[in-house]
Amino acid sequence: MLRERVSDMRAHDLVAPFPTVTLDLPVEQAARLLADQDLPGLIVLDERGRPFSILPGTQVLRLAVPRYCQDDPALARVIDEAHADTFLRALGERTVRDSLPGRPRELPVTDPDATLLEVAALMARTHSPVVAVVDGGELLGAITLQALMDRLVGT
Amino acid sequence: MLRERVSDMRAHDLVAPFPTVTLDLPVEQAARLLADQDLPGLIVLDERGRPFSILPGTQVLRLAVPRYCQDDPALARVIDEAHADTFLRALGERTVRDSLPGRPRELPVTDPDATLLEVAALMARTHSPVVAVVDGGELLGAITLQALMDRLVGT
Repeated sequence: MLRERVSDMRAHDLVAPFPTVTLDLPVEQAARLLADQDLPGLIVLDERGRPFSILPGTQVLRLAVPRYCQDDPALARVIDEAHADTFLRALGERTVRDSLPGRPRELPVTDPDATLLEVAALMARTHSPVVAVVDGGELLGAITLQALMDRLVGT
Repeated sequence: MLRERVSDMRAHDLVAPFPTVTLDLPVEQAARLLADQDLPGLIVLDERGRPFSILPGTQVLRLAVPRYCQDDPALARVIDEAHADTFLRALGERTVRDSLPGRPRELPVTDPDATLLEVAALMARTHSPVVAVVDGGELLGAITLQALMDRLVGT
């Protein structure tokens, strides 16, 4: 019975390898990684290899949008078009560390024994399509929204 | 020159057909649509066929998580496992309308003439990997985070 099997499932059953980036990586490279691998987000590790932040894709994009455009639609509209596409280049050597917003209240990080319902609630609450699974400080991988949804609806 | 071509781009150049759901659709079917088609989110239309809400995938998931579990990780952990996987079924005929949170301050909706920088800023600000493109009240389609990122990094 699929239902039975799902009900026994824990995070460790759904976790899969997931690319990580470091705080010192240039934002441009982080954006390229996201695009090239069709990732729903990125896991940012600290110096000890632990999750420092989990960035949903929209917030990786945010790192690459000039600050003066982020909150002003009108400004983004009138920016000289010839310059609009150069914003990735304009980032230069700006790193993920330089661009990160303040740390959120709650990181989408859980442990291998979390129930699927717990992972679902965490994803919903943190608005993150990526949840990192950590065991005793060691990153095991991640559960994506897609993987979780597939399991929950039984596809 | 790729750069030149990107700089001339507007929302109408990137917009693509995107599935929509109505307010009367059962949440279970909305969740299945998201999973089956690997969508980053859903566009919810009102009775007149205009975007009523744009739900990122994490918030479609949220519709399907019992309210009593949404904000209490401890509760989601101790819920009887045999019941945890039945939550999609437990939704019964609950519709998208019944489950929607209050309308957000700003919907990720733009017009065909928006610059790519404008679309990027809108995605980042609304935390939505889907932006609906509307022309005179008519939904033309959507721009996904993936499509935008691919264009911006030139893959």
